[in-house]
Amino acid sequence: MQKYVYFFGGGTAEGKGDMKDTLGGKGAGLAEMTNAGLPVPPGFTISTEVCRIFYENKNTLGGDIQQQIQEALSRLESTTGQKLGSSEKPLLVSVRSGAKFSMPGMMDTILNLGLNETTVRAMAARTGNERFAWDSYRRFIQMYGNVVLQIEKHAFDQIFDHNKEKAGARLDTDIGAAGLRQVVEEYKAMVKEKTGADFPDDPLRQLQGAIVAVFGSWHNPRAIYYRRSNKISEDLGTAVNVQAMVFGNMGDTSGTGVGFTRNPSTGNKEFYGEFLMNAQGEDVVAGIRTPVPIKELQKVMPQCYTQLREITDRLEKHYRDMQDFEFTIQESKLYMLQTRNGKRTGKAAVKLAADMVKEGLITSEEALMRVDPMQLDQLLHPILDPEANATPLAHGLPASPGAVSGRIVFTADDAVEKAKEGKVVLVRKETAPDDIHGMDVAVGILTSRGGMTSHAAVVARGMGKCCVVGAETIQIDERRKTLTVAGRELHEGDWITLEGGTGKIFEGQVPTMEPDPSSGEFADFMAMADKVRRLKVRANADIPRDAQVARKFGAEGIGLCRTEHMFFAEDRLPHVQQMILSTTEAARRAELAKLLPFQRSDFEGLFQAMDGLPVTIRLLDPPLHEFLPKREELMVELAVLKAKSGDKKEIEEKEKLLDRVEQLHEFNPMLGHRGCRLGIVFPEISEMQCRAIFEAACAVQKSGTPVKPEIMIPLVGTAKELSEQKEIVDRVAQEVFKDTGVTVEYQTGTMIELPRAAVVADKIAEVGEFFSFGTNDLTQTTFGFSRDDAGKFIAEYISRGILKVDPFQVLDQEGVGSLMKMACEKGRSARSNLKLGICGEHGGEPSSVEFCHRIGLDYVSCSPYRVPIARLAAAQAVIADRSTGERGRTV
Amino acid sequence: MQKYVYFFGGGTAEGKGDMKDTLGGKGAGLAEMTNAGLPVPPGFTISTEVCRIFYENKNTLGGDIQQQIQEALSRLESTTGQKLGSSEKPLLVSVRSGAKFSMPGMMDTILNLGLNETTVRAMAARTGNERFAWDSYRRFIQMYGNVVLQIEKHAFDQIFDHNKEKAGARLDTDIGAAGLRQVVEEYKAMVKEKTGADFPDDPLRQLQGAIVAVFGSWHNPRAIYYRRSNKISEDLGTAVNVQAMVFGNMGDTSGTGVGFTRNPSTGNKEFYGEFLMNAQGEDVVAGIRTPVPIKELQKVMPQCYTQLREITDRLEKHYRDMQDFEFTIQESKLYMLQTRNGKRTGKAAVKLAADMVKEGLITSEEALMRVDPMQLDQLLHPILDPEANATPLAHGLPASPGAVSGRIVFTADDAVEKAKEGKVVLVRKETAPDDIHGMDVAVGILTSRGGMTSHAAVVARGMGKCCVVGAETIQIDERRKTLTVAGRELHEGDWITLEGGTGKIFEGQVPTMEPDPSSGEFADFMAMADKVRRLKVRANADIPRDAQVARKFGAEGIGLCRTEHMFFAEDRLPHVQQMILSTTEAARRAELAKLLPFQRSDFEGLFQAMDGLPVTIRLLDPPLHEFLPKREELMVELAVLKAKSGDKKEIEEKEKLLDRVEQLHEFNPMLGHRGCRLGIVFPEISEMQCRAIFEAACAVQKSGTPVKPEIMIPLVGTAKELSEQKEIVDRVAQEVFKDTGVTVEYQTGTMIELPRAAVVADKIAEVGEFFSFGTNDLTQTTFGFSRDDAGKFIAEYISRGILKVDPFQVLDQEGVGSLMKMACEKGRSARSNLKLGICGEHGGEPSSVEFCHRIGLDYVSCSPYRVPIARLAAAQAVIADRSTGERGRTV
Repeated sequence: MQKYVYFFGGGTAEGKGDMKDTLGGKGAGLAEMTNAGLPVPPGFTISTEVCRIFYENKNTLGGDIQQQIQEALSRLESTTGQKLGSSEKPLLVSVRSGAKFSMPGMMDTILNLGLNETTVRAMAARTGNERFAWDSYRRFIQMYGNVVLQIEKHAFDQIFDHNKEKAGARLDTDIGAAGLRQVVEEYKAMVKEKTGADFPDDPLRQLQGAIVAVFGSWHNPRAIYYRRSNKISEDLGTAVNVQAMVFGNMGDTSGTGVGFTRNPSTGNKEFYGEFLMNAQGEDVVAGIRTPVPIKELQKVMPQCYTQLREITDRLEKHYRDMQDFEFTIQESKLYMLQTRNGKRTGKAAVKLAADMVKEGLITSEEALMRVDPMQLDQLLHPILDPEANATPLAHGLPASPGAVSGRIVFTADDAVEKAKEGKVVLVRKETAPDDIHGMDVAVGILTSRGGMTSHAAVVARGMGKCCVVGAETIQIDERRKTLTVAGRELHEGDWITLEGGTGKIFEGQVPTMEPDPSSGEFADFMAMADKVRRLKVRANADIPRDAQVARKFGAEGIGLCRTEHMFFAEDRLPHVQQMILSTTEAARRAELAKLLPFQRSDFEGLFQAMDGLPVTIRLLDPPLHEFLPKREELMVELAVLKAKSGDKKEIEEKEKLLDRVEQLHEFNPMLGHRGCRLGIVFPEISEMQCRAIFEAACAVQKSGTPVKPEIMIPLVGTAKELSEQKEIVDRVAQEVFKDTGVTVEYQTGTMIELPRAAVVADKIAEVGEFFSFGTNDLTQTTFGFSRDDAGKFIAEYISRGILKVDPFQVLDQEGVGSLMKMACEKGRSARSNLKLGICGEHGGEPSSVEFCHRIGLDYVSCSPYRVPIARLAAAQAVIADRSTGERGRTV
Repeated sequence: MQKYVYFFGGGTAEGKGDMKDTLGGKGAGLAEMTNAGLPVPPGFTISTEVCRIFYENKNTLGGDIQQQIQEALSRLESTTGQKLGSSEKPLLVSVRSGAKFSMPGMMDTILNLGLNETTVRAMAARTGNERFAWDSYRRFIQMYGNVVLQIEKHAFDQIFDHNKEKAGARLDTDIGAAGLRQVVEEYKAMVKEKTGADFPDDPLRQLQGAIVAVFGSWHNPRAIYYRRSNKISEDLGTAVNVQAMVFGNMGDTSGTGVGFTRNPSTGNKEFYGEFLMNAQGEDVVAGIRTPVPIKELQKVMPQCYTQLREITDRLEKHYRDMQDFEFTIQESKLYMLQTRNGKRTGKAAVKLAADMVKEGLITSEEALMRVDPMQLDQLLHPILDPEANATPLAHGLPASPGAVSGRIVFTADDAVEKAKEGKVVLVRKETAPDDIHGMDVAVGILTSRGGMTSHAAVVARGMGKCCVVGAETIQIDERRKTLTVAGRELHEGDWITLEGGTGKIFEGQVPTMEPDPSSGEFADFMAMADKVRRLKVRANADIPRDAQVARKFGAEGIGLCRTEHMFFAEDRLPHVQQMILSTTEAARRAELAKLLPFQRSDFEGLFQAMDGLPVTIRLLDPPLHEFLPKREELMVELAVLKAKSGDKKEIEEKEKLLDRVEQLHEFNPMLGHRGCRLGIVFPEISEMQCRAIFEAACAVQKSGTPVKPEIMIPLVGTAKELSEQKEIVDRVAQEVFKDTGVTVEYQTGTMIELPRAAVVADKIAEVGEFFSFGTNDLTQTTFGFSRDDAGKFIAEYISRGILKVDPFQVLDQEGVGSLMKMACEKGRSARSNLKLGICGEHGGEPSSVEFCHRIGLDYVSCSPYRVPIARLAAAQAVIADRSTGERGRTV
């Protein structure tokens, strides 16, 4: 019979720490801690396999599974010497979800399960604390009622608040045992009214219900949303952990806390965490009471503190990584509830990895695999300009680093709405899973309550988003949409600035500055990556300023300079438009001649900035109508002018313009007259651009700076297109070399961005000296997805599991990747030294970079800020190649 | 040294009949006829290779070539006993182009070359016919002046007409030797004035000039246009034939003519042709004088006629095909000037092929290869409804069959202009190569002059276009744009009807009827093809009427029924729009329920019509916004309404509609929310369509007619899309089977129309039971060409030789075809009995059909009228496979 249920307790566990797939992260941790002899409350884990079976069997559990649960329960009862429902020694358990990857706040948890009218009395008798027993009971009914019976929290709050009021209680703790008993009474009556059935008294029925609810919660919308935005597969499923309860709320010698073995925000080697005395676990992370720094525990309960330090040190060494742990102290006895590799900011990830190499804990290859390349993004974000000398309005806890300015919004929905117009900072008393969509679109998050491990803090760190929490001096009125602090009242739409690294909050927009990625720990870490990687990393940059940023981030060349960006500049657009409106070649040439000096000086700047590194310049790509006013706007203007009997001359002029715009109008511009098709129909445009490139190259080289131009012909589908354009490149090059007396080395190549180009890549490689995969367009044409339009249904596709991820963000290796592989093989078969690169967005996405490494590209090119990500991803690709081929994951 | 010049004459030739590539069609024919001992005037052929060298060397001929020409000329002089420029026995030659494929009227010809002040006198003396000598001379100057010196004809006509007038001459022949000498004088003066140089007197210089002009004419716009519309490669080049002149204009015992060994219009076995006494060859084909039927020759010169019959009979047996020949009789002696396989109408091609099989001249396989599948198109065109009993206005010669009605236009430019609004018939006194663009767009052509071999007749037959020529009772006034006949005056824009098969001309629109392709010679020929072919042929048909036509043409199933065409019908569109505007699934379902009966009855009709043959039904494909009013039109309407302070309620309604249209608006609809993406986001649409299909299928099957539905899911890029939709198909099928108590066999498959689908075809084939290549969309995405937009630059691409043909008309075997091949191989690797077909436009294009055969498709599907074309092409593919692999060509 297959094993579905794994027991742990009494110094030994059936599972193991490496069984995350089966036991989930939490279950595997509990097994490992138990096996390591740590003080873990006993219990059992129902495997993730059961979750899948549960869904396949239409939300039911089979007989085998039921039987194994029953057996494990019996063993738990004998291990603890307690019994579910016993009137003497009642067993109370927690029921928690636990997937392979932690999903904070997403899954539902039930505590104190096993309580009923009988056991609550036994509890009271055993602990001598009647209030605690009834409070546990009313908490249990509340949690169970909400999670399992799906009664909204509000219904319970109403009863509780009413009783509090009746009792004249200020705090929850002011309400006594009798009052709580009354609350329980009313809760049960309400449950019966809402569900038509009595609240289950039988602890076994309670347990059944709870297990089913945990499995059910795997598919709740928040969990689905979290998995989608964290790229976690729907198929994994969650395990269920049933564990004997320990109580942190049994009075002043009890407490509960969470912590990290090192600082997860900075990476500093310091014992880090928070706790609350006389509280249950949820109180710490829910942000309702602001917890106390863990070091305080040393004063309150020194013995427990020492034991905790000793245990967590062992855990870190055991797991060879920074640990995130939960503990409870019940009447002075310490229990470890959970441990796992701790989530960390990018900054911390880099520091931890580097430090652990120095400490001899891990190898440098392991260190490189420990950092998720995407996390580096956080280190590359701006910080506040120290010169600004701004005075903060308030301070909060530095939950997630970065510095951002945005307009204030007070609800997640408002955030989504206003984010369309610009940057917003989401300001909440505390955040909840319901707020995820708002957090997602906000540039920063500010809460007035909660600690470093509150929902807002954990989620924001995961998102790499600037976050300040627990800024308690701030008063938030969500209804009136105001924020009051230090005598100032701010409103929705007002600007605010957060500094996540320090927890400072400023009114207005405080200037920020770019971080310096070329020094310090970051630079050291990147140097480690650079030693390992084979792929070169270039940047996509159109202007000298971007090129400079790119070099600072370690770019080894420009992989894509889009010349059309130069065409859109204000001082050039009129010439571009005149050129397009010209009806003769001569007139077009006259306007192009005016554009030439602009283009030349742009290219000079680029060549100067790149100082001899290769610069790939793509000739004009977008359809010409993109440079003209919009057709429908002209139609409307003209219709209105006519309706109002407007100026005849104006009407005539607009009609003329509209005529030309109509001529150029396209139903599917993406598949229209663009790319090299422009240069073929209007060779004079290619000529001008080539002249500008070569004149700039010759001038810069003459001035002593080496240059390495690579001319890239876009949207080639046939070898002949490329050879026609290459002929222009070569001809103009020779003309300029002759005119200037300077000769520069250059290459001519093409973007592979059409399926046909991949299919006939051998023919194309006979002409072109390099290929650069334009995977944005290649994804569009391979899938038949317009990037501008597909957003709507791609979201639907991902939510239904038809696509795992958005192929515009993560390269579709199966489809688009196959075409790339074919193009590489065919291309190199015709030209063995063909240079191969990628310049689509995917060039900065780690899994895509790994793929590019695997199919043998020479370089990837991405946006300047993604260059470090690509550098690390390229190193990880090499390491993955060397080792088992499985990439590590630190979450 | 390479051989560039091939001599023929004196009973032997250096070339051979199979050297068409080198000698061109005309040169090869002359060589073969000479070798066969026919009376051919001697001469030599300068090879097509020289034409290519000529262009490579910037329009000059190298020394080697010049030398070989000189040698051949000397041999010609000795063979004829004449000498260029001789004052006693002057050699006169013709210089003609001759490419591999005949291009009537496109290339320029020069006759009587060698005449000057000396030789004209020698000619006069030798023939004793001074008038003839001077007429030849003035003709030569005129031709040479126009073709080589590029002086417009008009300048010569002016001089000639002025002299005619002065002489009081009515006909050209009324002008005497002295008058012609005067004309020559004035011609020469005019040439000197226009060119700044004397007309060349030196015959060698004349010859040089003529050869260069022939090569030059290969690239004149008309020739390029002809090659492009007949898909003849630019690289072939033309040969130049220099041949001793014989004279058909040497008086009443001389004449010239052209003929066919069988009737090229009907295919009947009758000696067929025309001649003119006392005329040069150009007079016959130029349509200036209406020639006499060739049978008259029997009366005029019985001996020559008998010799001609005997020679041409031999020629037909020799070439095993109907011959098109030219001859000249000089003073009672017959010379054969040219023979070649004759162009023929589709009707004639079929009859000739069938007859020649019966005669034992060719095998049935040869017969099948003899007919260009595209020619069959002509047989499928409408004929006049005999019931109409219309009385013709006039009769002309039946130059090219078919029956058409159109509005009268009098110039080619007008034809192009007016054809945009509807059908036009081009009416001309005679047509010239300048008129090609007008003939191209006209549905029919009518001339008042010229014979069956006139320009109009030859070109129209090539185009498969209805044509009546030589309708001499018609008076045409091109300036006033009127046509007068039988007392009626018709104007531009008036309707006229032509019957090309009988030469009848009718006023107004006479009803036409469809031909019956299921009986007679055509049916016999097609049966011959059906015996040979392996590919099945289906039709694309959306409605029962089309399905019936398709079956009549031999379709063996429906390969594509586009259900959206049903959505656009007037009585359904409002429901479709309401469905789209609905914001809830329930509301959408309510509207879909109203559409269901319509769809069901459409499908019932289709199933009935196809009587058990397979019917492939594609689920909804176009983006939903296609069913709503156009966005820009709404914007304009709304802006105007507002500008005019229109009705508030109307504005509000329009705003609401525009909102929804804006939501659905797409930048690139081709790559947008369409195809299976609709059915995935709105499964209720697929459900309704499947229900309609299965309810129809069950009802029809219950009524006793077998059904074979195949459900086709469009635009699939991933296997999961197909499996999601297939789940709906199967579920609804089971529901309907249960409800109706009837079960029908069905298949579910997909279109392969995205590159990604081809790449992952193995995965898709695990789900789908058939693939149908949607090569329209596959061409769009593989090339990145929008069919709606690419027209402009594709024309440019073809004219520059970047593309050989339009890939939307002729399948791109190298690119798109490679993907298809990959998909076939991958698909069959996963499902060995996967059914493979094609339903793009290419399914009815012969070279594409051959490719489909080669890669192993099971069927092709095309428009009903193309079904016979596909049937023949499929048979030819089998024969080509069996033989050397080279497809025959009869032109």
